[in-house]
Formats: sequence, C-alpha cells, structure tokens
Amino acid sequence: MSYQLPNYKHPNFDQEPFVSAPNAQIVEVKNAGSAPENYHALSIYPEYFKINGEWILASESRMDGVPVLRTDGRVQVVEFRNLNIGDKVITGRTEDGSEGIFVYASGFSSTDTHSELFSFRSGRSRETAFSKDYDELYELLKYEKDNGYIVWVLGPAVVFDYDSRTALSGLISNGFAHAILAGNAMATHDLEAAIFGTALGQNTYNQQSPPNAHYHHLDLINMARDAGSLEGLIEKENISEGIVYSAITNNIPLVLAGSIRDDGPLPSVIADVYKAQDEMRKHTRKATTLICLATQLHTIAAGNMTPAYIQHNGEIRPVFIYCIDIAEFAVNKLRDRGSLEVTTMVTNVQDFLVHLKNNLVK
Amino acid sequence: MSYQLPNYKHPNFDQEPFVSAPNAQIVEVKNAGSAPENYHALSIYPEYFKINGEWILASESRMDGVPVLRTDGRVQVVEFRNLNIGDKVITGRTEDGSEGIFVYASGFSSTDTHSELFSFRSGRSRETAFSKDYDELYELLKYEKDNGYIVWVLGPAVVFDYDSRTALSGLISNGFAHAILAGNAMATHDLEAAIFGTALGQNTYNQQSPPNAHYHHLDLINMARDAGSLEGLIEKENISEGIVYSAITNNIPLVLAGSIRDDGPLPSVIADVYKAQDEMRKHTRKATTLICLATQLHTIAAGNMTPAYIQHNGEIRPVFIYCIDIAEFAVNKLRDRGSLEVTTMVTNVQDFLVHLKNNLVK
Amino acid sequence: MSYQLPNYKHPNFDQEPFVSAPNAQIVEVKNAGSAPENYHALSIYPEYFKINGEWILASESRMDGVPVLRTDGRVQVVEFRNLNIGDKVITGRTEDGSEGIFVYASGFSSTDTHSELFSFRSGRSRETAFSKDYDELYELLKYEKDNGYIVWVLGPAVVFDYDSRTALSGLISNGFAHAILAGNAMATHDLEAAIFGTALGQNTYNQQSPPNAHYHHLDLINMARDAGSLEGLIEKENISEGIVYSAITNNIPLVLAGSIRDDGPLPSVIADVYKAQDEMRKHTRKATTLICLATQLHTIAAGNMTPAYIQHNGEIRPVFIYCIDIAEFAVNKLRDRGSLEVTTMVTNVQDFLVHLKNNLVK
Amino acid sequence: MSYQLPNYKHPNFDQEPFVSAPNAQIVEVKNAGSAPENYHALSIYPEYFKINGEWILASESRMDGVPVLRTDGRVQVVEFRNLNIGDKVITGRTEDGSEGIFVYASGFSSTDTHSELFSFRSGRSRETAFSKDYDELYELLKYEKDNGYIVWVLGPAVVFDYDSRTALSGLISNGFAHAILAGNAMATHDLEAAIFGTALGQNTYNQQSPPNAHYHHLDLINMARDAGSLEGLIEKENISEGIVYSAITNNIPLVLAGSIRDDGPLPSVIADVYKAQDEMRKHTRKATTLICLATQLHTIAAGNMTPAYIQHNGEIRPVFIYCIDIAEFAVNKLRDRGSLEVTTMVTNVQDFLVHLKNNLVK
Repeated sequence: MSYQLPNYKHPNFDQEPFVSAPNAQIVEVKNAGSAPENYHALSIYPEYFKINGEWILASESRMDGVPVLRTDGRVQVVEFRNLNIGDKVITGRTEDGSEGIFVYASGFSSTDTHSELFSFRSGRSRETAFSKDYDELYELLKYEKDNGYIVWVLGPAVVFDYDSRTALSGLISNGFAHAILAGNAMATHDLEAAIFGTALGQNTYNQQSPPNAHYHHLDLINMARDAGSLEGLIEKENISEGIVYSAITNNIPLVLAGSIRDDGPLPSVIADVYKAQDEMRKHTRKATTLICLATQLHTIAAGNMTPAYIQHNGEIRPVFIYCIDIAEFAVNKLRDRGSLEVTTMVTNVQDFLVHLKNNLVK
Repeated sequence: MSYQLPNYKHPNFDQEPFVSAPNAQIVEVKNAGSAPENYHALSIYPEYFKINGEWILASESRMDGVPVLRTDGRVQVVEFRNLNIGDKVITGRTEDGSEGIFVYASGFSSTDTHSELFSFRSGRSRETAFSKDYDELYELLKYEKDNGYIVWVLGPAVVFDYDSRTALSGLISNGFAHAILAGNAMATHDLEAAIFGTALGQNTYNQQSPPNAHYHHLDLINMARDAGSLEGLIEKENISEGIVYSAITNNIPLVLAGSIRDDGPLPSVIADVYKAQDEMRKHTRKATTLICLATQLHTIAAGNMTPAYIQHNGEIRPVFIYCIDIAEFAVNKLRDRGSLEVTTMVTNVQDFLVHLKNNLVK
Repeated sequence: MSYQLPNYKHPNFDQEPFVSAPNAQIVEVKNAGSAPENYHALSIYPEYFKINGEWILASESRMDGVPVLRTDGRVQVVEFRNLNIGDKVITGRTEDGSEGIFVYASGFSSTDTHSELFSFRSGRSRETAFSKDYDELYELLKYEKDNGYIVWVLGPAVVFDYDSRTALSGLISNGFAHAILAGNAMATHDLEAAIFGTALGQNTYNQQSPPNAHYHHLDLINMARDAGSLEGLIEKENISEGIVYSAITNNIPLVLAGSIRDDGPLPSVIADVYKAQDEMRKHTRKATTLICLATQLHTIAAGNMTPAYIQHNGEIRPVFIYCIDIAEFAVNKLRDRGSLEVTTMVTNVQDFLVHLKNNLVK
Repeated sequence: MSYQLPNYKHPNFDQEPFVSAPNAQIVEVKNAGSAPENYHALSIYPEYFKINGEWILASESRMDGVPVLRTDGRVQVVEFRNLNIGDKVITGRTEDGSEGIFVYASGFSSTDTHSELFSFRSGRSRETAFSKDYDELYELLKYEKDNGYIVWVLGPAVVFDYDSRTALSGLISNGFAHAILAGNAMATHDLEAAIFGTALGQNTYNQQSPPNAHYHHLDLINMARDAGSLEGLIEKENISEGIVYSAITNNIPLVLAGSIRDDGPLPSVIADVYKAQDEMRKHTRKATTLICLATQLHTIAAGNMTPAYIQHNGEIRPVFIYCIDIAEFAVNKLRDRGSLEVTTMVTNVQDFLVHLKNNLVK
C-alpha cells in the first residue's frame, strides 16, 4: 500500500519533568451537569494524565470535554451536561506536566518543517494553491476507504447541483463514506431532487423553476411524514438514487440533527440537539477523516467533538479534518474556535465533489 | 406623532372574480402531522379564503404553514407537525380566487412606484446607499417603541465588541425591544463579557487574550449550570450590565434556542428545536418589526415564521423585517427562501448597533 | 457539427413604428473628446439607427460608446476620448424607434422562456446549480476553437496554483484561446513560477515559502527588464511552460495593461491605460466568447467594451460572456454595470480551469 | 496635548554585531531600469546601511524599492524603473547586519506585548472587537490634523451613499485630509452626485433610478471634458459640495490615477500608471497616517509605497496605515503582500465614515 500514515512519536515519560511530576488532582462532581472548580478541559491534542504514577492517555477525546477517571483506570472525556454526581474530574489548567497534565501537540510532527519569519501569503485563502491538498486527499481517501472511518458533514448545498449530488452519491456507493452527519435540509432537498428533480424548487440541472415548485420540498416532507420513515418513503416512491438513498442502501449511518430552520421535519430527524450531539459523537469518536462541506453549523458542531488523533487498531494515528467552504470567514471559524489542525480549502463544494469523484470512482 | 404607517387597502370582494368564486375546498387530516394531498401552504402575504361565501383573512399567518378552518370560523395557520387528525385543511394551489383562495401581495403598495426597465445596480449590496434605510428605521423604532412589538434576532457577533454590546443593552433598557430570539452562544458570550470582560476568550475592548481565557466561556456555562438559572447567575455573580441582564431585568422575553454547536448548554436553553420554534413563534405572531443581526440560522428560522402583515389593534398593518449582515449571500438568503419583503443592509452589525444607539438613546 | 448557435431574428423594419419613424438626428462634434448634448450612448445590445430612411446596425459596438456616422454609411461606435471635431454623432435617448434609434434586446431569445412570478432562488450564487453551465461551456468552446474568437481575461489567481496554471496553459496550447487580456501581475507570477516554482513567493504546488522567496517576483521582473522583452526572457532562461510561454509560442496575442499596483513593470506592459483600452478593444471587437477569471479590474474593463452580439462571417451571432469569481459581489458587479447578458459562476477559478482542461484537452 | 506618539528606540550601533559588521556592498547599475544582481530591496520597516563605517537610515523608504547611495551620503529608495545607469545600488539579502544591512522591525514596540500560545480568534475578521481601534483612530486623527499628514485612499463606494459622502466631505473641509489618492470613478460619481444627485445612476439618498439615469455619469464626464478641468466644471456648474469640491476649494492635493476600467476619463486623471505612481508617492513619502477605503487597487498601490515609519520634524515616528473594507479577503491582501503593520477593520465604509464624522467634526 502506497499511502503512509505519519508515525506517532510517543512522549518519553521516563525523563523529567514527567518523572517528578505529581499525580493529577481529582475532585468529585457535586451537582449533576456541572464540573468542580478548576476542572480541566481537553484540547484537540493528545493529553496525558498522571494517575497513580502512570501517564494515561485520554481515550476518545474531544475539545472542551472534561476528563473523568473511571474505575477501570481509563480517562474518559465527558461533556458538562453528561457529568454525574460522584464523577472523578481531573482538575488543573497547566499543560506541561507540572500538575500531572501533559498536552502533547507535536506527536505527529516531522522535524523538517521550519518557516521563514518574513513571507507573503501566510494565511489560507481563495488564492492558496490547493493542488497538493487535493492530491493528498485522494491518496488519503483511497487508504481510508478500507482502513479508516470517513465521516462526512454535509450542508444542503451539496445537493443543489446535479453533478455534485451525483458525485457524492457515487463516493458513498463506492465505499468512501462510513458515516454522514447532516440536517433536515440536506436530506429534504436530496429526496426532493430524487422525486421532483428540484432542490428548494429549482431544477438541479437546468436551473428552471417549474410551476408551483416552491411546494416541492413541503410535498416531499409531507410524503415522508406520511410514509413514516425515510426507508418507507424510498420504497413507496421507488427512489433509486441520491445521497439518502445511497446511504440507506449501503447501510451508512445517517445522523440528521434538527435545527430551528427546519420545515417538517422529516422522520428520523433528531429534535433534541443534545441527543443529536450524542449521536454525532458516536461517529466522531471513530472518525479517522472528517470532511465538512458548506455548513457552518454542522461543521463547528462536528469539529468541536473531533480530536486530532485516535487510537485505532492499537496504534495512535492522526485524524484528518477537512473543511471546504467558499468563504474564508467560514473556514477560518473552525480554526478560530480551537480546531487548529484543520485543512481548509476555499472553493465551491460542487467543484470539490466532482474532482473527488473524477479521481476516486473509476 | 410624525410616523405614519402605510394604509392597508382592503381587497374589494364585492366584485368579480371574487363574487363568483367557489368556496375553498376542505379536506380532513387523516394522519397526525401530515397534510392531505393538494394542501395549500401560506406565503408571507395576506391570504383570504372563501368560507361559506365569505372571504376570511388567515390570522397570525406564517410562510409554509397550512390553513386550517376552526369551528369558530377562523382560519388558523398550522405547521405540518402540529396538524391533528380531523383538522380541516384548505386545499388548492392557485392564488387568484378561482379556488376560493386569494393571495394579496399589494395591500400596502402605493401607486407611484414604477421603475426603469434598464437601470444599474438593481440588487442590494455593500454599495447600496443605506442612509435612507437608517433614517426610516430610526423613525420606525421610535414609533414601535410604544405602538408595536419589536423582536430582535441575535447572532453572537453582537456581543463580541464593547461598543455594540453596550449599544444594544441600552436599546433594550430604553424600551426598543419587546422580545429577543437568540441561541446559547449569544447568551454565553454576553455573560462571559459581564464577568470576565471577554467574549470567546478575547477582551471585548482591548482585543487581548488573557492567560487561559479560552476557559472563560466554559467557566461561565459551568457557573450558570451551577446556579441553576440565568436569574440565579446574575444574582450570585452580581452581574449588572449586558444583553441578558437588560432583558431579564426589564422583563423582555428571551427565547434561547438550542443548536448542535452549543457548549453546555446554559440553563433555559431549549433543547428541542421544534419546541423552540413554537416559543419563537409566540413572539413572531405579535411582531410588528423584526430585526435580524448576524445569524443565518436564527434569521431564517425567524424569517420563515414572520408574515408581511399583522392584525394589530383592529387594523391590518405591515410587519417590517430587517436583516443586517456583512455578507451579501447571507442577506439574500432570506429573500431567496420566500421572505420577499425584507429590508437588507450589508454592513458589520457593530456599526449598525452603535448608529441605532446614537440616534435613539439620548 | 453538434453545436448550434441560436439564430438571430432580424427586426422587421417594414412595419410600424419603424416605417414612419424619423431619421436619427445628427450633431457634429465641436470639441475633440467631448460629445454634443443629447448624444446617444450604446448598450450591449444590437442598436439600429435610421439613416436616410434605412435602419443601419452599429458595427463593432460597445457599451457607453457614442454612435458616429461615417461617410461610407457605417455607424461606428467611438469612445468619448476618441471623438474628433466634425464627427457626426447621433443624438437621442429613446430606444423604441421614435427618434430613429432602436435598441433590440430580444434578437436571440427563444419564445419558450417564461418564468413563475413566485419562485425561490432567482439570483445566482454559490448555491446555483452550475452543471448545465459547465456542459454548455464545454460544447461552446469546442465550437469556438475553430469557428470563433475566444478572449480570456485573467487575474493573477490563475497562476497561483500548479494544476490550474497547467490546465490553462494546456487550453492555450490546444487552441482554446485566441487572445489574452491581463496585467503585469499575472504575467510576472506566471514567469516567476516558470523559473522559481513560486508565485508571489509561495511554491505553487507544495505551498512552501523558500528562503528569500519574497524576492522572486522582483528578481523575475528585473531579469525580464534586463532581457528587454518577454520573448528574450523566455529564450535566455529556457522557459518552456506556463501561460505566457504558451501564448507567445502559439502566437496568441497577449495584452498586458498596466496598473498602479504594478511592480516593475515587465517589458510589453502598456503604461497608458487608455492605450491599453484601445489594444484590448482590438480583441473584444472580434470576441465571440469572453471568459473573465478572478479579476474585477480587467473583467469590468473588458466587459464594458464587449457587446452582446457580433457580425461574424456575415451572420449576426451572440457573444457569450462568462465571469467566474469566488465572490457573488464580484460577479454581480459586471451585471450591475450594464453587462446584462453575462453568465456568472461562483467558484474558485482553480477548480473551474481544471474542469475545463479535463473536459476539453484529451 | 493628550495624544502621545510611541517613542522610537534607536538601535545601538556601538555594540556588536554592528561594530564589526562590514560596509554594505555597492554595485553600479549597467542597464537603466534594472538592478544589479543580488540587489537589496526594502521592506516597510526602518533599514540601516553601513556606509563608510556609519549606519545610515534609508530616507523616504518604500517596500520593494532599491537602496541607492547618493553622493551626499543619503540612501535613497528607488523603483526599478527609475534606476539610472551608474546608480550605486546596495546589494545583499540578509537583515542582521552581517552584510552591512540591518532591518529594524521593533523600533516602536513596547515590551509588554506577549501573547498566549493557545488562544481563540487570533486573526482579524468581522467578529473582531473594533471599539478600541475606533477610539484610537479618533485620537490619532485629532493629533494628525495639526501635526501630521493624513492621506486618504478612496474607492468609489465612499460616494454612493448620502451620509458617507457628506461625512467625508466634512472631514476634508475640517482639516482631516492632507492628500487624497483615488481614481476616475470616485471623482466621476462624486461630481455626478453633486449635479444629478445620483451615483452610477442611483440616487444616493432615496435609492431610486430616475429615467435615463444610466446616462448621468457619461453626461458628467462629457461636461467635465467640455469644461476642460475639474475647477472649470465646478465653476460652470456651480458645484458647492462633495469630495472633489471640498478637496479643490481647500487646496488638498487630489491625485486621480487612471485605470482600464475608466469611462472618459475626467480631466486631470493621469493616464500613465507609472507617472500616477510617482504622483502618489509624493504624498505617501510624507504620509504619517494612511487610510484606505474600499478599493483593492488603490489600497495595494498606496500600501506598497508607504513605509511603517517616517522622519518627521527631525524625529522618527510610526506611519499608521488603516485599511477598511467589508471583505476579510480584501483587508488581508495588503498584509499578505508585505504591509505587516496595517490596522484592518472589516465593515462597510459608509458606517466607518459616519462614525468618524460624528466623533471628529462638531
């Protein structure tokens, strides 16, 4: 196999300051859903906690979660709202080991990356050269198809265009998706396109708005509610293509999180956003690659719960996060909120998806 | 009082085609939560339905709702998910009266608006002249303060800057808000600013990030969860300024809708998005002016449930909808989704709010 | 040949109001460079002027130019600054023939285009479905390659990325360009990439900034000035690929217009912007397709001087204008300034160019 | 006076490595307009060159200019195209003194600026808190009015709105401008507004397009060309307000640089862009504050020729550069091209100008 994951360089805890460092301090939760003072919160990076003299790596981490020591010795990362009375929370806000907490940001770094102090164009924008990012992503996805867990995060724009909707459906059918996180609108307009040929009333190919096409998405939702489930709708209406169809027929989990923008909603959309977060995190826990397309809401939600590494098949490997959006502001937002290891690409997701299909699906 | 609302010109139903038009057809709901085939859906405009020979105006309308005839003769506008078995839904998809349905888009139009066929700059963009829109909004808000119901829809950006947060707090305290619709982030960062001086870790005035300031919003949420309510937090922490403080102390309803992006959440955030929609609609039903600032999610959610008119004190008057965002794409989105009567302004909401405060609060 | 140009439906001047219309009025220029009062100015559409009882179509038209009757009976379209004393300028500002001036906007329209009054998403944005536009452009360019005159208008962003620069070079080498309009920056960074592998100091493939790479574009300009010409530079430095190389070796005219942003400039950049306009117009007069990529300055300059039709091989055919940019504001600007017939696509030009190459160059 | 400029901390050349550093190397120009190999190019920062054992500060510097030693001992900074045969160019591309060249980036830094390694929102965007930037700019301009040289760089958007055009005119009339750099469009639409009330055909207050208003800017240009000068036009047409009027009547230099987008042009627009650069640089040499509004072309042109410091009244003081635009991409562009010391504000310039007027003009 040609693709080579970067090696994880384990920290050497047999040396100072780790040897002399104290054990991490632990305080129990008194009120369900709130953490004790001076609680620690996780970053996206690997974090180790000294417990009984041993440095334990947090498992299935996520940003802004709280580390809880379980009786089996694991350090689990828990959202505030999921804290229970008696949970043993690790406290302390240093990162250098001096309180038994070590944040390790450079585990996958090679040593040859140094940069000029003075150089142009240090940010990433529409003018960044993306050829290499594309090439690396193609190779990565070929590898992940069989060896990883690819999670897609989709805004409705992916189904507004004929070619991009077809491309993404093809990627799903050909094994390049292991889970899909989206909302009511993506699924609605995808199914609208399957039945009516339109997305939000406009034909996905010829751009025309047939008479009363502004009813199409409402009709689709109504038909789905009538059918009682997406599976039922697909059968009843003989739907045979599209994102939702490809996901369901290939047994790819499809988490549809509700939002206040929703019409309907479709059956299977999760009304409680915190239950939706829990369902989403089931997949981001396993994610080895996360690809976020044209949605600030779902991208930041998923990004917040995806760490920069994962323990996978006994090895620690990086999690690759991609965020593709046409606005610099949107792609920067994830980084501004702490997801520092994201690869951002500034373009229309329609073109991005067609490129992927052209290079990955024969 | 100087401000003059436009008059509503009632349609003349004593003439054709209205006199000969048939009564609207009615079909009963068979499955709860889904409408009968050929159901009618509302637009933002006044719509009349011929019932037993009389033209009835839908009350408390909203876009994409379904008209239901109640036993008291009212036509109520109901979301699909709120349809009950036996509800009498009006069917038909014409707008000209021929099926007993009349959509009336020109009730507030004056007759002197004609436009050139060929003219530059017909869209609204950053280069549109906004002076008149500002002046009209100042006059409108002075009138609405005592005679209307002003609903604000707020993205978190309104609290990131010292002057704009102060300006909006002042507008609330001085009677220019009757309800506020927002999310967890706006309230979190507003309260973070009240206690720590930062919003998402950055000082709202001097732009600096104090040590460990990336903990501030988590700490704030944790403190609030500990206190059990926003009121409790305000009391416990002696908070004395800001958006949330001004709303609560002035008894301005504050609807906080949950989203999958939320940390925490704060107490009083509504986890179920469809319950949140119901709470939001309680205020958009009454809204005479809706001002949406720097949030696509909440703007489209609120915009979808706000009609272009309202029956207020026995009169039919327009509802004024404003959408202010720095991106043309964002302000156009509401219009693209059917809210055709919105006034859009393309600028940074910080400056917008300071202008309002300068012109409205002595 | 599969591609079919739309037919031009000539106006029928044998009927009213054309028969009774007066001849167009003519006033002579008194001050060189300024037009007589009430001068007519052209739009992008075909315009006919009644001269001695005959309706004459303006030849080689352009927006905002002034129609001048020549002694040979042609109506030539002249820029204000190029008006000479004694030029016979047609006056009048109506469009319906009543002053002997007829603006004909519907010559290429088919009759089956009618649209709904109420429909979503009427504008063009990042969410517009572009599949059909791509497909039509592929077919158009295959036709134009041998039968038309394709003019490219290029911003520097086309050379910042390896794949897009290669794609465009391939399109040029394979006959898909008949003229190129650009500025100093595009040419500088293209040649910088040819010699140093960087564009504005950043490697076009691996995104790295080698030491002192911020000197590269200055060095390139200095080398070119030393060589005295772009041809000389290519020979001296053995340049063998890129936009400039492909243009020069294939004898494609390359008009480089100067701007106040320029470093250098390179040899052959035109310092006088009005002389540059004259050179550009030599090609827009002949253009049958104009493709503008990622430059507001050159796009609006070229768009202003390109009409919606051309007399080509004895026939009147449409001129197809495309504007591709990642910002809605930028693509709308051309339309806002009178170029109503432009097809806009909102995406990163990198992806656009790679798509074109994939579909046009075997 | 309350306003306090930061002190310049002169480098101490009496210590190493400066004492042992060699003199800078000098090579004479052989071809006019091109520099010798290994020429040095300036940054925006103060740069010192060791000449005959003394460290000489470049005077009237600019980015990407070449340092030339004059016979009077001054090091002058010259554009490539202005190099003459025999000019003594300093060569070398190090910055630490080791070749007799010292780039000094920290002359105005205070020592208390340290920042967290991990913090949110490090970039500047629409969500940055701008209150402090506004406050500092107000104080700065009050000081500069009498003690500095304020140069404005204007895109046409500043005249499209009634309030902003009035605000800027008031700032000019009240002494807050010492020079104005703009293009044909700004001046054209400003004068169009003065005479017709429209800018590019649209009324600057009521947003309406009067009949044939798309002729207004052409008519204005034609009238100006007829009058022969802007002064002549103002007199002939009794213009009594606006940017151009305020500049001319207050003897504020107004440099209008031509571009290929120009209609007309107006009298006094400079057709040769490199002559225009020379005229612009006459003012950026003297600039103590540079404020760039809503124009990428003129902003980057002016930014490239404005250093971060100036010798003013015998002292070395900073030059303050502001760039205000509604697009993050636009404001970042200046920084990406080497103007690292710019203060960027992301908003609509209309609001920015009204704020300035409200705070500076009683």
